[in-house]
Amino acid sequence: MAQGPMSSNVVLVGKKPVMNYVLATLTLLNQGVPEIVIKARGRAISKAVDTVEIVRSRFLPEKVNVKEIKIGSQVVTSSEGKQSRVSTIEIIISKKE
Amino acid sequence: MAQGPMSSNVVLVGKKPVMNYVLATLTLLNQGVPEIVIKARGRAISKAVDTVEIVRSRFLPEKVNVKEIKIGSQVVTSSEGKQSRVSTIEIIISKKE
Repeated sequence: MAQGPMSSNVVLVGKKPVMNYVLATLTLLNQGVPEIVIKARGRAISKAVDTVEIVRSRFLPEKVNVKEIKIGSQVVTSSEGKQSRVSTIEIIISKKE
Repeated sequence: MAQGPMSSNVVLVGKKPVMNYVLATLTLLNQGVPEIVIKARGRAISKAVDTVEIVRSRFLPEKVNVKEIKIGSQVVTSSEGKQSRVSTIEIIISKKE
């Protein structure tokens, strides 16, 4: 399948219910995307971990590898120009053969 | 320094303000504890990442390694006997020489 130049293997976890992101991840896995990046920042970080854990414990037991987990910080500028730091996470998963 | 048999290198992140856990981590680092495990579950996972990011960006820039990050699930049984799954994280950090 043709993959676009960006974000076709990225699930960006935000404010929606966790099952939205679980479904997005399962869809990519079923399309054969070899590596999926689950990203989140701030309070959504817990939900990103939930997404991976629900996929691999409930839907695809023994079939999903967590390849790498990266954490970091981003500087966010508010509309008033005030800068603050926010934590980020990227969880890279792949389907076992 | 003598280390007890358990949890003397563990910071368990929960409901307190993030700076409590930052201070606990800095204290262990300053005591010379070679490896510290920052643990959390559920919604506190985001705060565990914040703890590490604040330590390494604000207090000890370029001096802290993230050695490993593990995610997992735990089964929690409520007082009514109902079981549910909760996500967990462990972030293992060390001080650079």
